Amino acid sequence: MDLELARELSVEADSKIVLLVMDGLGGLPHPETGRTELEAAYTPNLDRLARESMCGLTVPVAPGITPGSGPGHLALFGYDPVRFQVGRGVLEALGIDFDLQPGDVAARGNFCTVDDRGIVTDRRAGRIDSERCARLVAKLQGIQVDGVQVLVEPVREHRFLVVFRGQGLSDRVADTDPQREGVPPLPATATAPEGERTAGLVARFVEEAARRLRDEAPANMLLLRGFAVRPHWPTVQEVFRLRAAAVAYYPMYRGLGKLVGMHPLPSGPRLEDAVASVREHWERYDYFFVHYKATDTAGEDGDFDRKVEAIEAADRAIPALVELDPDVLIVTGDHSTPAVMSGHSWHPVPFMMRARWARADECDAFNEVALQRGILGTFPAVDVMPLALAHARRLKKYGA
Amino acid sequence: MDLELARELSVEADSKIVLLVMDGLGGLPHPETGRTELEAAYTPNLDRLARESMCGLTVPVAPGITPGSGPGHLALFGYDPVRFQVGRGVLEALGIDFDLQPGDVAARGNFCTVDDRGIVTDRRAGRIDSERCARLVAKLQGIQVDGVQVLVEPVREHRFLVVFRGQGLSDRVADTDPQREGVPPLPATATAPEGERTAGLVARFVEEAARRLRDEAPANMLLLRGFAVRPHWPTVQEVFRLRAAAVAYYPMYRGLGKLVGMHPLPSGPRLEDAVASVREHWERYDYFFVHYKATDTAGEDGDFDRKVEAIEAADRAIPALVELDPDVLIVTGDHSTPAVMSGHSWHPVPFMMRARWARADECDAFNEVALQRGILGTFPAVDVMPLALAHARRLKKYGA
Repeated sequence: MDLELARELSVEADSKIVLLVMDGLGGLPHPETGRTELEAAYTPNLDRLARESMCGLTVPVAPGITPGSGPGHLALFGYDPVRFQVGRGVLEALGIDFDLQPGDVAARGNFCTVDDRGIVTDRRAGRIDSERCARLVAKLQGIQVDGVQVLVEPVREHRFLVVFRGQGLSDRVADTDPQREGVPPLPATATAPEGERTAGLVARFVEEAARRLRDEAPANMLLLRGFAVRPHWPTVQEVFRLRAAAVAYYPMYRGLGKLVGMHPLPSGPRLEDAVASVREHWERYDYFFVHYKATDTAGEDGDFDRKVEAIEAADRAIPALVELDPDVLIVTGDHSTPAVMSGHSWHPVPFMMRARWARADECDAFNEVALQRGILGTFPAVDVMPLALAHARRLKKYGA
Repeated sequence: MDLELARELSVEADSKIVLLVMDGLGGLPHPETGRTELEAAYTPNLDRLARESMCGLTVPVAPGITPGSGPGHLALFGYDPVRFQVGRGVLEALGIDFDLQPGDVAARGNFCTVDDRGIVTDRRAGRIDSERCARLVAKLQGIQVDGVQVLVEPVREHRFLVVFRGQGLSDRVADTDPQREGVPPLPATATAPEGERTAGLVARFVEEAARRLRDEAPANMLLLRGFAVRPHWPTVQEVFRLRAAAVAYYPMYRGLGKLVGMHPLPSGPRLEDAVASVREHWERYDYFFVHYKATDTAGEDGDFDRKVEAIEAADRAIPALVELDPDVLIVTGDHSTPAVMSGHSWHPVPFMMRARWARADECDAFNEVALQRGILGTFPAVDVMPLALAHARRLKKYGA
């Protein structure tokens, strides 16, 4: 549903929606057993919920597309992830809880190694440790160019965040990262006329930073990419009339929620921690986005058994969530991260929604195979929000 | 997936995709047995492949729409068939392997019968035989109007191809075929200002042709329709980074492949011939479009048993195709041609894709009924290409 239509039809109501996102939830069969992570896991609580729920599989962006975390979550929040794109620099800022101000231009930075002719020989500076990163970042602090402040923050290993703060800046600046070795860093250039001045400032910052890093080999240079300003999108409050909270332990997911106007709430790495936070704030919000990370981390690491354990650990926290008795309770993922692929994938994502007005189906377990029999079939993730609102009686009739 | 997004996400990879199109594959139950052509056929190899594949049914253009060969194939190649339209004149040229040059304007021609007042009494000139068609076409050769060459080629029975070749021509010319009898042929008129000059040339060609045909009743006049120039679309190489080959016995299908940048390879009427050609050129291409015509021909003829035989003949060639072990092997059709309807239809088309990263489903046979249990459900044919690319690991992640 288009946001304009959503804005027209959404109404306030005395109902609660909980969206539990188990990151990277979808999987693929283990080659030895033929069973996926969800099939292998002992999940009595999720399975019971599946029997009471309307089930299916979601397509995060489009068939065949492997989404990053940004598009995967935005779709679940009801924002078309092809129309609403968030730049790398902004995601990096969200990931360290850096509070981007209107007008700030953020970029992702890499320390790298250049030889004495200025040729990049290692784009990741030998993956220096985070401690060294923090020390080098300290050397880059306080650089000002033409009255524009340059804020630098360490992220992890060779990665850091750069934020240009001042009047009239633009994100229309090309990456200085050539994305390969054996060539010099690219000069900072504008990708549109309005980026000319900012590109000049970036060039001067890089020049000064290079001077300060000169004797720091292997981290004797830096590369910047993903120049971006924080987008200003219609909030879920404006569009869907929801007082929404983001309950996430990792900053990037709190940040993704904040991008669409959700209020961040504290959480912990375990689903129990998140559920406790939801319970504590139950009366204050209509919509809770609850993020659980462990499934994705294990999947990315290619650790099938650990992903199974992460699923089982989440399953044990499900009764506490069900006990809150939200009007709409959704359990799904932002994308698949099959352990056998050690990374995100395009495969449709397990989904279930328990709600008083949901139609029943024949789905009796929460896994990729059983959910195929779900009444929702395989459907776009961007439809999840309108379905949630409808089942929470928060959408009025369209047309006379 | 939008072609712009595809262009952004597609990457080269060391993987092979084979798309087998069994033309007009989908069917309907025989009224006496209640079984479709695929259900009636003995297809052990296709059924085995279905057990190993991800299954479903495709919608070529949109629900309820009966596609011609052009849209049916373009959708499978990843080109939205509503946006990418190919004119009748161009399809006719492709059908006889006529090599349209940039700027050529092609039209489909019919010989027809007119009475002494110039009224069309038979739009198909009594369906004169192909030999007579060729003789009449010879009489029309060598006509030049205003320095523009008019090339005429026989097609079959009363049908021929006309190509106007010269500077500054336009396809904005209306049909001269009134599409009914009892009225005179329509004058050649422009449908937009840029078609004015070409419409004038067409009128003069028709005048001269009519003079030469005067004594050739029942083929004493001609009707033209479907003026079209060869479109210039982004190629599969540009958009999907595929070195692609079209393995088809009939020129129109090689031509449809050529329209999107596929290299034509020799084939024969049997699927064995096509598979041999694929094997011979295996190393040179990433993507093979393999066309098998016999299923459609039998369906169009309303010959249920012959369509069953055509399916069984194809089934016998499947092991040779499987033996090549492509990373992604797809078997589907461009549309349905139920023998009981003696023509193309709108019914969703059997589909299966075998690939290492494909999720399993409960589909155990390759026919319209069993495929309904497929994990892909009923889905747009235009999604076939992105799914194939994803499973061949040829799409990078979208968004950070």
